[in-house]
Amino acid sequence: MLRLLGEKHPFSHICRFLQTVATKEPSAPSVNGPIPGRKSHQLKAEMDRIHQAASVRFFVNYEKSYGNYVVDVDDNKLLDAFMQISSIPLGYNHPDLISAVSDPRFITSAVSRPALGSFPRHDYPTILRNSLSKIAPKGMDGVQTMLCGSSANENAIKTAFMWYQSQKRGGKPPSQEDLDSCMRDQLPGTPNLSVLSFDGSFHGRTMGMLSVTHSKAIHKVDIPSFHWPVARFPRYKYPLKNNVDYNQKEDRNCLEEVEEKIVHSRKKNNEIAAILVEPIQSEGGDFHGSPAFFQGLRDITKRNGIVFIVDEVQTGGGGTGHYWAHETWNLQSPPDIMTFSKKLLLGGYFYANHMKINEPYRIYNTWMGEPTKLVLLERVIRVIERDNLLQQVREVGTELRNGLEKIQKDHATQMLNLRGLSLICAFDLPNTKARDKFLEITLKNGLLIGGCGETAVRFRPALIFSHKHCEIALDIINKSIKDL
Amino acid sequence: MLRLLGEKHPFSHICRFLQTVATKEPSAPSVNGPIPGRKSHQLKAEMDRIHQAASVRFFVNYEKSYGNYVVDVDDNKLLDAFMQISSIPLGYNHPDLISAVSDPRFITSAVSRPALGSFPRHDYPTILRNSLSKIAPKGMDGVQTMLCGSSANENAIKTAFMWYQSQKRGGKPPSQEDLDSCMRDQLPGTPNLSVLSFDGSFHGRTMGMLSVTHSKAIHKVDIPSFHWPVARFPRYKYPLKNNVDYNQKEDRNCLEEVEEKIVHSRKKNNEIAAILVEPIQSEGGDFHGSPAFFQGLRDITKRNGIVFIVDEVQTGGGGTGHYWAHETWNLQSPPDIMTFSKKLLLGGYFYANHMKINEPYRIYNTWMGEPTKLVLLERVIRVIERDNLLQQVREVGTELRNGLEKIQKDHATQMLNLRGLSLICAFDLPNTKARDKFLEITLKNGLLIGGCGETAVRFRPALIFSHKHCEIALDIINKSIKDL
Repeated sequence: MLRLLGEKHPFSHICRFLQTVATKEPSAPSVNGPIPGRKSHQLKAEMDRIHQAASVRFFVNYEKSYGNYVVDVDDNKLLDAFMQISSIPLGYNHPDLISAVSDPRFITSAVSRPALGSFPRHDYPTILRNSLSKIAPKGMDGVQTMLCGSSANENAIKTAFMWYQSQKRGGKPPSQEDLDSCMRDQLPGTPNLSVLSFDGSFHGRTMGMLSVTHSKAIHKVDIPSFHWPVARFPRYKYPLKNNVDYNQKEDRNCLEEVEEKIVHSRKKNNEIAAILVEPIQSEGGDFHGSPAFFQGLRDITKRNGIVFIVDEVQTGGGGTGHYWAHETWNLQSPPDIMTFSKKLLLGGYFYANHMKINEPYRIYNTWMGEPTKLVLLERVIRVIERDNLLQQVREVGTELRNGLEKIQKDHATQMLNLRGLSLICAFDLPNTKARDKFLEITLKNGLLIGGCGETAVRFRPALIFSHKHCEIALDIINKSIKDL
Repeated sequence: MLRLLGEKHPFSHICRFLQTVATKEPSAPSVNGPIPGRKSHQLKAEMDRIHQAASVRFFVNYEKSYGNYVVDVDDNKLLDAFMQISSIPLGYNHPDLISAVSDPRFITSAVSRPALGSFPRHDYPTILRNSLSKIAPKGMDGVQTMLCGSSANENAIKTAFMWYQSQKRGGKPPSQEDLDSCMRDQLPGTPNLSVLSFDGSFHGRTMGMLSVTHSKAIHKVDIPSFHWPVARFPRYKYPLKNNVDYNQKEDRNCLEEVEEKIVHSRKKNNEIAAILVEPIQSEGGDFHGSPAFFQGLRDITKRNGIVFIVDEVQTGGGGTGHYWAHETWNLQSPPDIMTFSKKLLLGGYFYANHMKINEPYRIYNTWMGEPTKLVLLERVIRVIERDNLLQQVREVGTELRNGLEKIQKDHATQMLNLRGLSLICAFDLPNTKARDKFLEITLKNGLLIGGCGETAVRFRPALIFSHKHCEIALDIINKSIKDL
């Protein structure tokens, strides 16, 4: 048995691992020099020779990182409220997840990875039920696993197109003419359909997803695109309670534009089959939509027989104090499809029953997800429930918001448009230069947070971000805005 | 230390795992009933309620599978020459890979997954050097990790477009006008560029990749597409040595068509920026191109300033007896970009130095690959070298080919167009019905192989497929073709 591991002492690695890995958080951040430091600079030059490293900010010692603290290779200990672009649900090296790595289902899936669409594990239905199905949004019982946010959105949109065309055929599968013509990329098999997306949106980096992404030029430039309609996403005035009329009008205007685009697209014979929208436009600059706006969108899609796809890649997984941000919208009927990734550890989408694709090999690829991620996700969900983390997120979210409001009072010209849903919280600075400078200062002061859009600062901490972390973060924000 | 694992006895799982997992191969296949069997049918119905299962062939007990043998949930033991659609390099539950799961770098990366583009591990450059860089194709020192074949091809093509536009600008980065116009999907920032692909090709399932995929209608129907040029890929007569003139003419005709399409695309102001081609069109039907054909393509791309992208997603990783199929082409200058996935355990691409993108955030996404896969890949490469597996693949490939030729002599009207590069081997049956029936019979006889295209049967065994497995496979093929 021991021989099988091909090591004289097969557990020596894990033993060594547990001796070297950090097992508790620092009590406070500590920064001992510029970030990136000397070692990060060296490694960047080394990496750049074999793999592009232009966007690397610093190198991390993941063995030394723990909980809410990331430790870089130059031994700076930072309170991390960005968490690998919002993708780490329980902080670094969470003991429950380390334990999951020794789960036999994890080990076999890691070394004998299934082609899930054809030859799934015998316990895959159970694994799905114990992970994703446990947190399925209301009204969406079906789930499809993928690998990342882009592949989640790509396949969600493909599903929408298939459904839309099937409706036109009265529910029938594609005809022989459809099948023949699509091989030449011609009508009727290759339809002139489009997806309506929004100014400021981000849905991924494939060519299809760049066609529905409108946040930053550097993502899109030089890449051919589908020429699909784009509508305005609301841009509210803050604080909301002082700008009710303006913001309601903003919602109405945006919804009217969506309806106009739908009518227009039909006239141009380039029908809109789906609307794709983020609850909070994250990469674009943390722009929020109101429940009324999303209720309006849902009504429009219902009225027009259009698929309503909500992209919860960044908002899903608990940061809003709910598993899914759209739970706060009080929709009359749920979205048709909702995509996820990041904190869920792998990409995929939930869908309502009527969106199910029945023909084999239409939504398909070699891996179609990865069971190791679901074995980890089982534990993540168990910890969220056991430790009551969504409740904690809502409470600490309120604390963070109150603390920021207090800071804002003294710095009203610097800290603008404070907004958030629990820990998915953001504010603006007056311009890009000030924002970038502010992020530099907070980093120097020991807090890692994210920028987004032109002028926004965004919080994306892990779900274990607690009272004490919030206090430290607020102190640093306060100090940093003074230093600006 | 033990407490950290959150289990009373933290290694009990691994111990249990090693006691329950298979540690040797059956000596021969054994089939005890229809496949899919009763349990697979039950599980399929169960899975179908929460996750589409239409394409599931049977459920696998991965703990019981070992080496070249896959064991399904109904306890049928099959010699597996398909290996999860060609994606398992060393067979099931290889001891060296099980050992890698206890590597501290594996454990930390699994539970604290980095956003590699911004915050890579401190040892990531070393991990890259010890894995992918070790098997870099000649002339391609740069590598970019992704997650799957589709994302590899998507980003390879994006890189090609960026390079092509940058050449037009005399090497300069995008202008302000480019940046502004691309946000409206307009010229000049959003160019009218295209990628030339081939009839019968398969490059993935995203909308962009479906635009360059022309193998099966069910992949493409109902999905909008970029309208990009498609050229014929050679269709040879076999055996090659009896059809030299015909096949040379086929190469010339196909190359001429490619040049015509390039000229035509320029006239239509829809320039071809890249040619994307598989060494062996795998999903399309295992169609091979000759070294002369690929040399011709390389010449054409050089002459026209077009990027030459070779898609080795299915051919890469050793099945041809070389790490990369294109090593057998004797190219004067290497491809500009070569993509991989499957047996490499994660997607990505190698590129020649001149293709490097220098601006940050252009080739970027949250995960950009996954270090756990590279820790496993280090071991895979070590095993390939230690056990001299590429040599073995070439030898067993010859044996397989000789054995099939012998069978073909007695069944010349049934087994057609025998062709292959080592273990990536295929033949045709007279029609789809006969092919599908043949695959059913081989399965019943204990051999799992793949179909592809309309009439082909393809071998995609693991690199550990040895003399004895080849003998058993040939016996089953012989028996099955008699039973047809």
